[in-house]
Amino acid sequence: MLNAHRRIQPYIHRTPVFTCQTIDRMAGAAVFFKCENFQKMGAFKMRGAANAILQLPEAARKKGVATHSSGNFAQALALSAKLLGVRAYIVMPSNSPEVKKAAVRDYGGEIIECEPTLKAREETLQVVVERTGAAFLHPFNDHDVILGQGTAALELLQDVDNLDVIIAPVGGGGLLGGTALAAHHFSPKTKVVAAEPFGADDAWQSKQAGKIVPQTHPQTIADGLRTSLGDQTFPLLRDLVERVIRVEEREIVEALRLLMERMKLVVEPSGAVPLAALLKEKSQFEGQRVGVILSGGNVDLKTLAAFFG
Amino acid sequence: MLNAHRRIQPYIHRTPVFTCQTIDRMAGAAVFFKCENFQKMGAFKMRGAANAILQLPEAARKKGVATHSSGNFAQALALSAKLLGVRAYIVMPSNSPEVKKAAVRDYGGEIIECEPTLKAREETLQVVVERTGAAFLHPFNDHDVILGQGTAALELLQDVDNLDVIIAPVGGGGLLGGTALAAHHFSPKTKVVAAEPFGADDAWQSKQAGKIVPQTHPQTIADGLRTSLGDQTFPLLRDLVERVIRVEEREIVEALRLLMERMKLVVEPSGAVPLAALLKEKSQFEGQRVGVILSGGNVDLKTLAAFFG
Repeated sequence: MLNAHRRIQPYIHRTPVFTCQTIDRMAGAAVFFKCENFQKMGAFKMRGAANAILQLPEAARKKGVATHSSGNFAQALALSAKLLGVRAYIVMPSNSPEVKKAAVRDYGGEIIECEPTLKAREETLQVVVERTGAAFLHPFNDHDVILGQGTAALELLQDVDNLDVIIAPVGGGGLLGGTALAAHHFSPKTKVVAAEPFGADDAWQSKQAGKIVPQTHPQTIADGLRTSLGDQTFPLLRDLVERVIRVEEREIVEALRLLMERMKLVVEPSGAVPLAALLKEKSQFEGQRVGVILSGGNVDLKTLAAFFG
Repeated sequence: MLNAHRRIQPYIHRTPVFTCQTIDRMAGAAVFFKCENFQKMGAFKMRGAANAILQLPEAARKKGVATHSSGNFAQALALSAKLLGVRAYIVMPSNSPEVKKAAVRDYGGEIIECEPTLKAREETLQVVVERTGAAFLHPFNDHDVILGQGTAALELLQDVDNLDVIIAPVGGGGLLGGTALAAHHFSPKTKVVAAEPFGADDAWQSKQAGKIVPQTHPQTIADGLRTSLGDQTFPLLRDLVERVIRVEEREIVEALRLLMERMKLVVEPSGAVPLAALLKEKSQFEGQRVGVILSGGNVDLKTLAAFFG
């Protein structure tokens, strides 16, 4: 992971760690927020995308890269590819937020729209890969992507001593898995806890069952967390993650409100889920030093307006 | 001002300076944002309030401090007073945003509500001062307050070399005046430009007329900029400020949108006015190194929702 970090450093921001006295008081803990909402293109996914492209052989890079993503990974791959002089083909569900589609276009990515089902995404991607010869990079179920995402927690551990726990959101498990690897290797005493919405609780179910339980019909405003786990990420959840905390939708909105009102931060709903989990189960974290990964800040202002209007 | 800075340092945050490639591209300039939205209690006013209290003799401090303010200065005085173990009496117009009243209460300030007119504010304050013996601290028309507010620009000039210009919003003129003094003493080559809404353009009119033109019936969402100048602040505008740029309401909302979508920052409408001014007259700033003071981040989420819903 140190190699991954060195590799991607020219292409990412080292994001700041913020604190907030009001939230510390509310939580009864010392909370350190890793602000990946300030990451390039607005989310941690830049880290994994850059690392995965940089690990491709030169010949493969020439043909470009392709992925399917409902949002942030699409932007991240488009921007990383642009910075590295590589073409990016992005298969996106037609119902992706407009702000995310516009950003992919701005970063020079070529968008291919498809129906909003996993099947359509995979089939469309297959066609694109056959047509272009581009290398498929999975948004999370990929070792190099997971290592890249883990560098956010690596930086947090470098910047803040003696963290008792890090809470990360879990969708496909790339960020969570990378976070768990970072803690395991660089600060074994630091526990890792996952946070997800009740309306997309496949990680909780999977950890209970000891095997991947796919996410069907997710119902949550946390659009980055609707995905199922993959075979690369599930074992990290199973073996290296302490537990999964599930939160209600209104708890996510309340966490968003705190982040905006008190910390003056724009965070996307998925990024507010770990704070919601911390406040929901604060007795578990009392007196501890808690790292929270604010995973991203890409949210339509219309969406925010609907929460707070 | 260096003394003021040294004095208040234990009670304020040294706020970060942020940059944004997208906004640099849009403006055709290198823009450095001084993030006073991350200041304690959410705005630069903490600086002036702390400095003014610290300059009071011990005997005066014991009787407490009082002010009238529609918002941020009220919170700033309440919090500074709390940190310094001093009582704070705050006269607030009854139509102040609820989030600001709640914050004053949270900080331990005693609120005395009055009708939303300058006359009612002054009369009510008089009664409070007579009753308590508290020292009246004016929100902006006070040398110590102005010096304190100037420390935001002082830090910006310490952190960023060779700024060609700093743009600050102007309401009563405390921040603008302090900014002008900071540039004048510590970086004489750096020009200072003021920004205000067309709907509250008393600074522009005052500078044209060469004397204070009071603000009557302000019409703007930038609630921090509705005030008239004072006799302590006007001379600084007249003598040390290059010019005043006026912006439309929709330009303020567009600047807010950029700050939220691109920089992931929650900024209050008044704080977005300098960016609106920069983008409106960008030909004037082309190729320059421009400091922008994001003066605060205290905005009701309902207000934001109304802009973007």
